[in-house]
Amino acid sequence: MLNLMAFLNDNFLKLKAGYLFPEINRRVRVFCETNPEAARRLVRCGIGDVTEPLPPAAIAAMHKAVDEMAVRETFRGYGPEQGYEWLRAAIAKNDFPAARGCDVADDEIFVSDGAKCDTGNILDILGHKNKIAVSDPVYPVYVDSNVMAGHTGEANDAGTYSKLVYLPCKPSNGFIPEPPKRHVDVIYLCSPNNPTGAAANRPQLEAWVKYAREHKAVILFDAAYEAYINDANLPHSIYEIPGARECAIEFRSCSKNGGFTGVRCAFTVVPKTLNAQTKSGEFKPLHPLWLRRTTTKFNGASYIAQRGAEALYSPEGKMQVCALIEHYLGNAKLLREGAKAAGLRAFGGVNAPYIWVKLPRGVTSWQAFDKILAEANVVITPGSGFGSRGEGYFRISAFNSRGNAEEVARRLQALKW
Amino acid sequence: MLNLMAFLNDNFLKLKAGYLFPEINRRVRVFCETNPEAARRLVRCGIGDVTEPLPPAAIAAMHKAVDEMAVRETFRGYGPEQGYEWLRAAIAKNDFPAARGCDVADDEIFVSDGAKCDTGNILDILGHKNKIAVSDPVYPVYVDSNVMAGHTGEANDAGTYSKLVYLPCKPSNGFIPEPPKRHVDVIYLCSPNNPTGAAANRPQLEAWVKYAREHKAVILFDAAYEAYINDANLPHSIYEIPGARECAIEFRSCSKNGGFTGVRCAFTVVPKTLNAQTKSGEFKPLHPLWLRRTTTKFNGASYIAQRGAEALYSPEGKMQVCALIEHYLGNAKLLREGAKAAGLRAFGGVNAPYIWVKLPRGVTSWQAFDKILAEANVVITPGSGFGSRGEGYFRISAFNSRGNAEEVARRLQALKW
Repeated sequence: MLNLMAFLNDNFLKLKAGYLFPEINRRVRVFCETNPEAARRLVRCGIGDVTEPLPPAAIAAMHKAVDEMAVRETFRGYGPEQGYEWLRAAIAKNDFPAARGCDVADDEIFVSDGAKCDTGNILDILGHKNKIAVSDPVYPVYVDSNVMAGHTGEANDAGTYSKLVYLPCKPSNGFIPEPPKRHVDVIYLCSPNNPTGAAANRPQLEAWVKYAREHKAVILFDAAYEAYINDANLPHSIYEIPGARECAIEFRSCSKNGGFTGVRCAFTVVPKTLNAQTKSGEFKPLHPLWLRRTTTKFNGASYIAQRGAEALYSPEGKMQVCALIEHYLGNAKLLREGAKAAGLRAFGGVNAPYIWVKLPRGVTSWQAFDKILAEANVVITPGSGFGSRGEGYFRISAFNSRGNAEEVARRLQALKW
Repeated sequence: MLNLMAFLNDNFLKLKAGYLFPEINRRVRVFCETNPEAARRLVRCGIGDVTEPLPPAAIAAMHKAVDEMAVRETFRGYGPEQGYEWLRAAIAKNDFPAARGCDVADDEIFVSDGAKCDTGNILDILGHKNKIAVSDPVYPVYVDSNVMAGHTGEANDAGTYSKLVYLPCKPSNGFIPEPPKRHVDVIYLCSPNNPTGAAANRPQLEAWVKYAREHKAVILFDAAYEAYINDANLPHSIYEIPGARECAIEFRSCSKNGGFTGVRCAFTVVPKTLNAQTKSGEFKPLHPLWLRRTTTKFNGASYIAQRGAEALYSPEGKMQVCALIEHYLGNAKLLREGAKAAGLRAFGGVNAPYIWVKLPRGVTSWQAFDKILAEANVVITPGSGFGSRGEGYFRISAFNSRGNAEEVARRLQALKW
């Protein structure tokens, strides 16, 4: 009789308890319920969610878009699944300038409702036999979406899955992994990095493009935090590196530059020159597969969100985005200094909105989470939630008001370790 | 050396040329470029996209939501991945009333950015060994998403894939498939139906729930057109049928009731009482898998869209939605009569915005498409695009202005077959 029953996807059963952020929320809720007084002092530097209002240019554009939806003549129904041409053109021109060596066509850009969705969904077009490499620590979505797709074995107690290749990120490599000696087919790179706040420099990305071309591997380059790059020498896009068009897909987002975490708009670049092999060993471009996936399983990002995103590329929009970035990077500086003043080593926070803090030997990430929550009433993210090499670290997010950042810096400074 | 190269998903190569609607767009573009005069008379009744402006209640709610995003105190970043509680509560109360026998809890509802996405993504949580049944004709997304997931063999020339079970829909069964004699694990049902406009009655759904419970199968019930049900005896939700909570997932959308095709908001119901089996034959609920899938690979629908959706459930919103539905159903009546006046048999269009028209013997669907485009300058959808049993039919969409519907009815009536 059991043969006669629908099957579920067993791979889900390999996933370790609760995705990181729901688990943080749960602990905070319990703390607040049992400590109502402390709860009032609570400052959240955990989830990497923006806090400041949207740029006025985006607000104006979205009001206009809503008004258009109220009138038959300007009403918009289904748009192109891959995004409106005016938005894709603005993205190509502004985010991939020829002056920086980029060469990305409008129709290589796919507008979506979020980079998290895209980094998960991209696996739809890749085969199941690929050897997958991720950094450690790592943004959990990369790992969990591979677990769900059946690309891993079981996890050990530290949450490390067999069959994945973990590339260690540590102080000695500046938290940017080197290409491995062994062969891998697909590599997730995130720069500026979540969670470590490290940003890859040009030689580092060149080494990766060289590796990927030699191994005919695909780099999944997550540049969601690109806008936080301060240092003029650092690449903003993988496509600034010659040869990347043959080996890399890039993910971008309006969430952390324009503050669109609640609005939802992002995009993915799949160059037409990027190939992968079929089971029979033929070369085929991935672009038509992603186009087909997009037209079949997606119906376009909200028109209103796309108009908001377009406004981020207007002259006023750009200035307003710059001001937002400066605000958050100002916070990052304060928080970094606060952690250092407490005698802790702090990394990142210069070209990224995250500070990655090393704990004294013997203190675990969740111990630090509970201590900082109880004593400073601050929510951080435990480093171990990002992988075994995140153990002994925590992440502070700079997404906050200036007042909160100052307050958190003071409270962190006062902690005894 | 070829072993050392990333693999693509070969299943995509089984997909037949262009997803239906892009192909229609291509033919229309070619026609318009070569017939600029006729192009000016063109009326589109092809893609099932709404044409009338959004309900004023949704417009007001979205303006308010945009304003909230402009102020720090009311700004919203990431929402719950499964949707805001206020929207889920409004949905549970209004769409699944106890008075109609429904019993759906708020936390069994997952708000998303589209039913097309949901019906595609749901396969993520199901195993690869399921026997999948679809109706014929069928909404192409059900088939194509299974092809991409590797659940089918190759297609024949009619676009029929091996390994799928096709359930014939024809005049003799009122275009609602009967449960098959053989065992299947997963069944896609769409009622009111796209493309045939048929709506399942209570005995038909009862037969399906009985079958699914006996076979421990999962019904994927797509009720995106539920709002078009006129007949008081027809069920609006599969959950009106006793026992459906143990065997059915339901998909709903704000696209066709509230006109949200460009706004993007939909939802899926996964009852906590719905189980499937693991490879080792254990029963497990699907709800936690879909929750995990949602939190990992999705970041919530746009806050602005969710506020718009909520407004559809306000007293004014409900009246405005009713008026929209009446408008489109009025069109459907005209178009149905127009087709009949031309001597063709017309189905649907009573409890659905689609009319399914039978062509004279020997006329193919794409021949009719080209003829209607050339002679009436009207875009319809060729029935064969929905499957082999759609051959010899075409679909007319009632989504239009009244004036256009009247004009199209006149032009259809004048066609000689």
